[in-house]
Amino acid sequence: MINVGIMGLGTVGTGVVELLETNRSTIARRLGDEVEVKKILVRDLSKKRTPYAEGKLTTRADDILEDGEIDVVVELMGGEEPARTYIKKALENKKHVVTANKEVISKHGKELLELAERSGVSLLFEASVGGGIPIIRPMKQCLAANRIMKISGILNGTTNYILTQMREKGWSFGEALREAQRLGYAESDPSADIKGFDAARKLAILSSIGFNARITPDRVYVEGIERIGPEDIKYAGELGYTIKLLASARRTGEGRVEAVVAPAMLKENHPLSAVRDVYNAILVEGDAVGQVMFYGQGAGKMPTASAVVADIIDAARGGKRIYCTCYGEVEVVPASLMTSRFYVRLKAEDNPEALAEICGALGRNGIGLEMAAQKGVGGGLVEIVMLTLWVPFGDLQRALNEIKNLKGVKEVANIIRVEEADEDGLHGGHR
Amino acid sequence: MINVGIMGLGTVGTGVVELLETNRSTIARRLGDEVEVKKILVRDLSKKRTPYAEGKLTTRADDILEDGEIDVVVELMGGEEPARTYIKKALENKKHVVTANKEVISKHGKELLELAERSGVSLLFEASVGGGIPIIRPMKQCLAANRIMKISGILNGTTNYILTQMREKGWSFGEALREAQRLGYAESDPSADIKGFDAARKLAILSSIGFNARITPDRVYVEGIERIGPEDIKYAGELGYTIKLLASARRTGEGRVEAVVAPAMLKENHPLSAVRDVYNAILVEGDAVGQVMFYGQGAGKMPTASAVVADIIDAARGGKRIYCTCYGEVEVVPASLMTSRFYVRLKAEDNPEALAEICGALGRNGIGLEMAAQKGVGGGLVEIVMLTLWVPFGDLQRALNEIKNLKGVKEVANIIRVEEADEDGLHGGHR
Repeated sequence: MINVGIMGLGTVGTGVVELLETNRSTIARRLGDEVEVKKILVRDLSKKRTPYAEGKLTTRADDILEDGEIDVVVELMGGEEPARTYIKKALENKKHVVTANKEVISKHGKELLELAERSGVSLLFEASVGGGIPIIRPMKQCLAANRIMKISGILNGTTNYILTQMREKGWSFGEALREAQRLGYAESDPSADIKGFDAARKLAILSSIGFNARITPDRVYVEGIERIGPEDIKYAGELGYTIKLLASARRTGEGRVEAVVAPAMLKENHPLSAVRDVYNAILVEGDAVGQVMFYGQGAGKMPTASAVVADIIDAARGGKRIYCTCYGEVEVVPASLMTSRFYVRLKAEDNPEALAEICGALGRNGIGLEMAAQKGVGGGLVEIVMLTLWVPFGDLQRALNEIKNLKGVKEVANIIRVEEADEDGLHGGHR
Repeated sequence: MINVGIMGLGTVGTGVVELLETNRSTIARRLGDEVEVKKILVRDLSKKRTPYAEGKLTTRADDILEDGEIDVVVELMGGEEPARTYIKKALENKKHVVTANKEVISKHGKELLELAERSGVSLLFEASVGGGIPIIRPMKQCLAANRIMKISGILNGTTNYILTQMREKGWSFGEALREAQRLGYAESDPSADIKGFDAARKLAILSSIGFNARITPDRVYVEGIERIGPEDIKYAGELGYTIKLLASARRTGEGRVEAVVAPAMLKENHPLSAVRDVYNAILVEGDAVGQVMFYGQGAGKMPTASAVVADIIDAARGGKRIYCTCYGEVEVVPASLMTSRFYVRLKAEDNPEALAEICGALGRNGIGLEMAAQKGVGGGLVEIVMLTLWVPFGDLQRALNEIKNLKGVKEVANIIRVEEADEDGLHGGHR
């Protein structure tokens, strides 16, 4: 009998309790042992709960952390504290820990994994990235023979829902956000999703594993989707692109990596461009395996519970643990030095001099253009949409700072990265 | 130091030897130990080989199987014998076995896994399905909390290449096959691929794991792609479908499963319809996780080597083994009782009586139609293309046997299953 203590009985916690009950016999057959929820930490004993939780609730964390019969502690409270302190104490008390807490793992993964190793127990966090999609374990085990070159993905369902609705329904960002909140896809304070911090935490976890390096969220360059307007969606579509919040990390040389979360324009044949609404997908490129993609529901009660319970089963199986080898030091390339192609949207006066001055500023800063198009907006103003060649972000920023101050220019409305279709694309024609 | 013996130095064997060398330090860091190829079994010592194989070749299997220093035996010879005998002996001698041999695993997996369990060693076969795509381990571990409801996939790259070329270039089956052979995607005797047997072996392995049941390849209903003509590709396209060789298994009730490999028409928004050329993809549906998809190169030297080396690392890690729980008995639904929607293409005389008689035969056998369309072919003949409602395959066969013998009917040219777009499709709009 494996005794489990669950800390936090929100949506995912309830899903875990229910799944352990409904699939009890399947799980027991696969594990060769029964899994039993012994205690559940909640804040409020009076709240109505799933019937499976009856008689197990407690408001004292130590009832779980100090219970010698509990083998696996499942932390599902979220947030940095007290979750981190509880995980630490559970590991010190030689309990396996399973968590979906991307904030704690991305920031404190190293110290906690070292502690787990010293205690000889597991610290598993499959549910912290991609909900139910298997990604952490496949990267650690199935791709272990590869040098991982690149990881890119749609890691946040809320923003992907908003961008999908903006594109398909023509909604503004605000309209799409309100609908996401109404459906429960976005929280009342949506900033961690919208501003890209949620995706940055997940990218930090994946790239730490993939590159065997310590990459914390503060080392990821982050832009959110707040500035994406219907015009950008429209112009992107005209050029054959879809705008996604892309989390992307790649090796750019020995000991150097780039890690970015930012809106990106993907060609419509890019495998990630078809990922709609709250779905997530992660594309991993290894030197031997080429590109592999993992795809599914990146959030939600039962998909996330599926990943948590798989980790419980794995922890309960015992045997040799796989600890992190994510301790290597790497240099993270500063955003100003990252090169990309960029889409730029400007508002300017409708006269030839304005355009000439813009081109001059671009030329002085070494920004080559693939195309530029003028779109009418009325009132003597035009919108200018440009696609640059590959240029360093810092050079573009310098050029745009000059351009912003030109007399005929009203606004630099947006800058969006253009993700190259990978030469060896999954939908491509060669191997 | 982990000593490895490799049996078979063809394309994949060479890839494994090279990958262990080129990524030696990455692998050693992840495993915490060095992996060394000690001996390699070949048939012909005089053939030119990768330089990394030098000094390690032998033509005697027992040099590997009886070598007390070899920890892991990697079987990459393919075919049923002597591979099965060698795997058995290696397991008896308490060596871990890693294999890419789908024929041996799909037919003899049960006895070999039981033997591995008795010997306390691992028998791993990630590379037997989907090349480098992580699928076996994710199903066994990451989805362990789920009751798997359905598995469907494009599991054979050769046939997917042929069907892609027929669709995109308008080639005949024969032309596409010859090009596949020229590129090395199809063997000179391509029947195992073309007739669906290769995909059936892979489906047997996946569904045994997914449904915790013993499903051998002979229990899978199999049709190949030889009869697919350019007309079928064309008419499917007109109806908004792509034709794929689909391997599909699902639970249809307590202790009952369906397992089919056959051409299927997929709606163009189906996640598997975009998988082109030699790529593979597997869609798994679990009761908790919903649908997840795994995608990548299903064959090829280095992708397959990536999976083999991951298994070597896993075997070398030691610790508790996960054995198969695939011993449950299930009833496999006979093909005649499997219901589906079907596409039917007939050649008939161009007169109203012929059509009336066809409709009569369908009606007598309870076959309802969603649509029927008449296409001109000339010479007093027409082609009739029909989509049925959901009907048992046996009823349709009975109707078509009557129709075949009607005076005005020249030929029942083809019958193809129509795969329903899953209600909760990955590209869909809800969760």
